[in-house]
Amino acid sequence: MSRFLSPEASRLEPYTPGEQPQDQQYIKLNTNESPFPPSPKVVKALTKAEVLKLCLYSDPTCAGLNAALAKRYELQPENVISGNGSDEILAFAFRAFCGEGKPAACADITYGFYEAQTALFGLDCKRVPLREDFSLNVDDYMDFPGTIFIANPNAPTGMAVPREDIQRLLEKDPERVVVVDEAYVDFGGESCVPMIYRYDNLLVVQTMSKSRSLAGGRIGFALGSPELIADLNRVKYSFNPYNINRLSLIAGAAAVEDEPYFQTCCNTIQENRAWLVGELERLGFSVLPSKANFVFAKSDRIPGGELYRKLKENGVLVRWFDKDRIRDYVRITIGSMEQLAELAGALDHLLDEL
Amino acid sequence: MSRFLSPEASRLEPYTPGEQPQDQQYIKLNTNESPFPPSPKVVKALTKAEVLKLCLYSDPTCAGLNAALAKRYELQPENVISGNGSDEILAFAFRAFCGEGKPAACADITYGFYEAQTALFGLDCKRVPLREDFSLNVDDYMDFPGTIFIANPNAPTGMAVPREDIQRLLEKDPERVVVVDEAYVDFGGESCVPMIYRYDNLLVVQTMSKSRSLAGGRIGFALGSPELIADLNRVKYSFNPYNINRLSLIAGAAAVEDEPYFQTCCNTIQENRAWLVGELERLGFSVLPSKANFVFAKSDRIPGGELYRKLKENGVLVRWFDKDRIRDYVRITIGSMEQLAELAGALDHLLDEL
Repeated sequence: MSRFLSPEASRLEPYTPGEQPQDQQYIKLNTNESPFPPSPKVVKALTKAEVLKLCLYSDPTCAGLNAALAKRYELQPENVISGNGSDEILAFAFRAFCGEGKPAACADITYGFYEAQTALFGLDCKRVPLREDFSLNVDDYMDFPGTIFIANPNAPTGMAVPREDIQRLLEKDPERVVVVDEAYVDFGGESCVPMIYRYDNLLVVQTMSKSRSLAGGRIGFALGSPELIADLNRVKYSFNPYNINRLSLIAGAAAVEDEPYFQTCCNTIQENRAWLVGELERLGFSVLPSKANFVFAKSDRIPGGELYRKLKENGVLVRWFDKDRIRDYVRITIGSMEQLAELAGALDHLLDEL
Repeated sequence: MSRFLSPEASRLEPYTPGEQPQDQQYIKLNTNESPFPPSPKVVKALTKAEVLKLCLYSDPTCAGLNAALAKRYELQPENVISGNGSDEILAFAFRAFCGEGKPAACADITYGFYEAQTALFGLDCKRVPLREDFSLNVDDYMDFPGTIFIANPNAPTGMAVPREDIQRLLEKDPERVVVVDEAYVDFGGESCVPMIYRYDNLLVVQTMSKSRSLAGGRIGFALGSPELIADLNRVKYSFNPYNINRLSLIAGAAAVEDEPYFQTCCNTIQENRAWLVGELERLGFSVLPSKANFVFAKSDRIPGGELYRKLKENGVLVRWFDKDRIRDYVRITIGSMEQLAELAGALDHLLDEL
């Protein structure tokens, strides 16, 4: 920290992303990436001719990408904003819908980035405890006088809230925005997108980093009423008008247009998840009911931190959070069957040695 | 604007980027892009194998790109941070070095985005008038008790401040950060990079959008003391840890490593600029002395707004700012000789018709 840091910036608590070893020697099940390459349509779309056009700015309105998303989700382009990853979209939402007299609320156990971002704008953020079993009780938010952020399915638990619960929240106070972060919804959750035309206080945030195999392209988007989207654009044009690069705009649109590939990937992840849950339970793990491309699991025989370290020694990266309530667990990304078979073998071996 | 907008966000005055017609029917001299494609090394580096790896997150530390930049600028990697365009880097700098008790200062006529970004974080921004001839007098900033942002060369004037002037500012108050935005420095300005080891209160911001022909890749960077860079990373990790996509990280490093191509492009722009200035003066324009890849020019025979509109009707896009002090001028990007010849022809024709 330099002597020049502003008081506001000194209060930040930066997020620590999962390890990203650049040498790729690990079986990488720690950051919820897709084990599948992007759609062949993405590969085909990124031509040399497009690379040569990198000397020109990208379209700040992201018109092509937003049109593809609008078509896919049966909305209009004015219901869509795209961002440099959903992290950027979330930051826009915090700035647009929280501030003086409008605090934010989110679960005590959820995506760690929400808290980092509220600090960025000096916002109050109420942390609402999940139930003992890590389920989210929307009744705890019913009277909250601010903007509510719900990851659904939640991270790192993988547990989902029924759409009806979100609907109750939306109806309870139409003057309050509910932001539903559906980063993992494509793996079995119930999306709130069909409620967008009905509730103008609903903002749904999604990402192409998981189900669209484009984590490295950094593409997120939000869907909501034209007024909410205009507010987010107001923030975007005060921060970084050309927020998505040319190649990611093209890649994102191509990925959205390949529905069969997307469906195959999502189905395979769900099949692999079922297999892994079976293996983990066979090995005596407790596994939370996951609707995401990861599972959150603990064993009575080995603490979470030790399991994380031993797996890393054995060439498998999973994620462990040194945090109250979840210290016993590890989060395991659903990889390919080959990766999961290696993981299961490593677990077998580790538990045998205890 | 929705009824949900926060008071802070309602005070934003979003920046209006230059027109980006997606159909490309214009001779586009309005947003200071390079008329040359990216280096052939960039094209070669963006292989199909790299596209297939888009399913994996990019390196949040941007290690490869930062190392290439450090080598090019004779610094260490800890002197470098890269961003999603220099706009993102500037936002990090405003958040890191301005706040309560630390206002920002910049010129009255300069890059319009500074003011938009200060509003984003609710910062005070003092606008310091340029001299009548649009030159910047650093003495006007000597006693300013906050963080100083100087575009050098300045936009939209193209006029440069001597390095010695910046040095005087740095020395006057070592407890104050001076941010020098060198977006256009490669076209004849004097860079402050050689002073980085000497002054730990100096932050130099650059971009690959102009001299590196990568506007569509969205790559900016800042160079400064390890402490200043650590502060910027603190903000980055509270906002968007994976801020640059995989392909731009690769493209940026490849561009930096092709020094001969870079030099050729910069030299050609300066030759073309000299030619255009001669043509404009022949047509009776007053042209400010430019060290950038654009010129700022006015004619007594036609108001700036009318000239902009007539050129657009003739298929040439330039930039006009409907703003006090500069309403008479248009800003013209230095394109290829073919583009500039078309522009000169259109100007000849327009002025003949008056």
